[in-house]
Amino acid sequence: MTDPFVVVGADAAGLSAASKFRREAPDREVVVFEKGRWISYAYCGMPYFVAGYVDRMSDLLSLSPGEVDERGVDLRRETEVVAVDPDAKRVTVETAAGDRREQAYDDLLVATGARADPGPFDVRGVDGAFTLHDMDAAAAIDAYVAEPDGYDPDRADVSAVDRERVDRNAAMPAPETAAVVGGGYVGVEVAEALAERGLDVHVFHRSGHLLSPFGEAVGTRVEAALEAEGVAVHTDAPVESLVGDDRIEAIEIAESTDAAVGGETVPVDMAVVGVGIRPNTDLLDGTGVDLGPGEAIRVDDRGRTSLPDVYAAGDCATARHAVTGEPDWTPLGLTANRAGRAIGATVAGDPTPVGDIAGTAAVKAFDTEAARVGLLDPEAAAEAGFDPVTETVTAGSRSGYYPGAAETDVTLVADRDTGRLLGGSIVGTDRAAIRIDTLATAIEADMTVAEVERLDLAYAPPFSPVWDPILVAAKVLNGALDD
Amino acid sequence: MTDPFVVVGADAAGLSAASKFRREAPDREVVVFEKGRWISYAYCGMPYFVAGYVDRMSDLLSLSPGEVDERGVDLRRETEVVAVDPDAKRVTVETAAGDRREQAYDDLLVATGARADPGPFDVRGVDGAFTLHDMDAAAAIDAYVAEPDGYDPDRADVSAVDRERVDRNAAMPAPETAAVVGGGYVGVEVAEALAERGLDVHVFHRSGHLLSPFGEAVGTRVEAALEAEGVAVHTDAPVESLVGDDRIEAIEIAESTDAAVGGETVPVDMAVVGVGIRPNTDLLDGTGVDLGPGEAIRVDDRGRTSLPDVYAAGDCATARHAVTGEPDWTPLGLTANRAGRAIGATVAGDPTPVGDIAGTAAVKAFDTEAARVGLLDPEAAAEAGFDPVTETVTAGSRSGYYPGAAETDVTLVADRDTGRLLGGSIVGTDRAAIRIDTLATAIEADMTVAEVERLDLAYAPPFSPVWDPILVAAKVLNGALDD
Repeated sequence: MTDPFVVVGADAAGLSAASKFRREAPDREVVVFEKGRWISYAYCGMPYFVAGYVDRMSDLLSLSPGEVDERGVDLRRETEVVAVDPDAKRVTVETAAGDRREQAYDDLLVATGARADPGPFDVRGVDGAFTLHDMDAAAAIDAYVAEPDGYDPDRADVSAVDRERVDRNAAMPAPETAAVVGGGYVGVEVAEALAERGLDVHVFHRSGHLLSPFGEAVGTRVEAALEAEGVAVHTDAPVESLVGDDRIEAIEIAESTDAAVGGETVPVDMAVVGVGIRPNTDLLDGTGVDLGPGEAIRVDDRGRTSLPDVYAAGDCATARHAVTGEPDWTPLGLTANRAGRAIGATVAGDPTPVGDIAGTAAVKAFDTEAARVGLLDPEAAAEAGFDPVTETVTAGSRSGYYPGAAETDVTLVADRDTGRLLGGSIVGTDRAAIRIDTLATAIEADMTVAEVERLDLAYAPPFSPVWDPILVAAKVLNGALDD
Repeated sequence: MTDPFVVVGADAAGLSAASKFRREAPDREVVVFEKGRWISYAYCGMPYFVAGYVDRMSDLLSLSPGEVDERGVDLRRETEVVAVDPDAKRVTVETAAGDRREQAYDDLLVATGARADPGPFDVRGVDGAFTLHDMDAAAAIDAYVAEPDGYDPDRADVSAVDRERVDRNAAMPAPETAAVVGGGYVGVEVAEALAERGLDVHVFHRSGHLLSPFGEAVGTRVEAALEAEGVAVHTDAPVESLVGDDRIEAIEIAESTDAAVGGETVPVDMAVVGVGIRPNTDLLDGTGVDLGPGEAIRVDDRGRTSLPDVYAAGDCATARHAVTGEPDWTPLGLTANRAGRAIGATVAGDPTPVGDIAGTAAVKAFDTEAARVGLLDPEAAAEAGFDPVTETVTAGSRSGYYPGAAETDVTLVADRDTGRLLGGSIVGTDRAAIRIDTLATAIEADMTVAEVERLDLAYAPPFSPVWDPILVAAKVLNGALDD
């Protein structure tokens, strides 16, 4: 009898792999170890839960433990894999009760995800200060934001929740002013969420525009969208420290900055820190596994690590970038699901590529939608060996005479020598974000900007003008390439 | 001195060509002959004008004659080109006043468009019966639908309008019940428009589902969308005749049909016939020019006809289909604009391909959006030499927990041997139509369904679930291809 397929981590990548493996190889065994209580939750949905757009935390769960069981997957929650011996092909697991045992594997998938990296800002033990990277934090934030007598405990209707933490936060006085530290996409989403809950919200962002990976054209419009809804956005405003010992009291801004708040101390009674995340790779410390960008576990086009029969997928692993062909670390939900599923098939005997990533991402700020793809930053493109040329256009989302036509900004980046499309961004209020999929497809097909300009995109007055904003941008960039 | 670039027709293709030519070759002369008074109008916007979504007919004009003049284009309206002598390289023109003269050309562009083809239904001279393929018809319909004392003559605020016809229709009693003959996209748009204006609307369609080129999955949902808004849709209901001599009185349905109205006579006081259009090619009769599908003027990848130095573009010309590589006739706005622009550049000395078409089209019926691309009909795909396999899936437009997630139906067609994506359709109420551009791009890039399944499309709960409906459809179709 062979040893089982062992999976570490029961979220998107791990459970996709286990489920696919069982469907393809129904006679073989798969064991999934999860150190916590939560499984299969929608990380990306948490800000919308906090906003109140989603009524129940249970709505954010894709699969219950029972459903995983019904798929024939042996799921062990609150069981941590504490060591891997790749030579002996076995892992050491430890339950919450302290029991340790060895588990042999035929193949191993490390799908340990990522964790919030609060940088220098330690939020532990400080009431009103949070990071948002797990469901317990989302439940606690939701409870903290509510008035003590207005909190509905059924909001956190999942048995896995840290009820004590929820109750403690619910009992605290509701905050009035919140700081969001970091203007990346989680920061933008949390800012909207807290504003929707009635708080005065300040966003502090280190650099000159929000959503750095989305480029300046997007950042400035998202900033305007937040400010139009009463959110105070402070750019070029690196936070020096969180002030407050037991409870958050204020945010101190670094002096050496152009921002109006430079050197100031802004009083707040809530802070959410979203300055970064870091891949969970500790489990493989000492195994000699190759790491890649972002210190994530380096994998090949089948999701294989440098260790024999050890795979990695999801937020802890690299993926090959469609433009550079090199490993990249852009942890996103589809990448995790897709790689997990492919690895499940591969381990079951059906070799399947995990697929390239294009770094496609979308975000909204109230009614403004933004998205990006590929190599958008000219510096990053130059580092990858390209000679980037970029143009930004503003064009209508519909025929000008059709009600609801909205200004849509499209930025495209191409390589001067080859004309190849390298990256792009789109921002606007009318079906803007979903249009990025057109650019993602063009990038994965290695199209030139001239080819993009000749795409037969849909024209219908309610949805797009004759020249879709993407075509307008391609036309302008082509002109620049000809110069 | 060289002879001018002569353009016949002053709508999308003709004026795009003339404008581009003048920009690229500012020292050379371009003359545009237009037999009517209207130029550069948005054909696709007419139903929305009738619906009342657009306040003024002038909103549908892209360029005024004055603006064309400012571009250095010599525009002659009400001047018909009545003959072409390709050997002598000259055309014969005739003004509305009856003056005839010869005009030599260096290059000639035929951009004569298409006209409504009412089939056996002669609407001329029958009050209340219309086709909708020009601005005068749109103005007349708009006036006819209004109550005599409620019509605002400023709606038709363009000097070119046939004012006598407008006034006559405005004076007639307003209709209560309208028949739309033909359930193609103009029929669907007109049905919505007339329902918005308060009429009881019946749509009669010859075949089993509306919007035949969009496939059954789209047709059935669009039918449901129309009926939900009170429009009576009759499929398998070929119209036998329009009843009424001076004014439309009824619609007679053929007996040999399954429709409930088979053999019946449905009383109406308005009818709009939209059963087809036909390319305007009479001008080249006798020249021996090659025609192609739909009896349109056959052109190559630069827009050249079989006659020397004679180009054709827009609704009167073929275009190369991206899937088959063969000439095709799918008259649409972007095709006309793009081909005109390319020919303008080519004639000016910068050889430019007119670009392939993918048959990308989109339409809405109230809140339901639909779109199609490529070879969607399995029979057409088989005729083109493919072995088509097709699947339709229903998937959510957003993460399930996010408010507003809507069922989106995606149909994909692929070739069994190669896995190549041949065509697709999308229908739904949430950002459905614009998603077709992703499929159009994949088709123009000759992608396989396996490649589509691995596309890194944007995932963000407000816009798309982890597995976008397109990815779900690709996954299911891939499974069918493996069988």
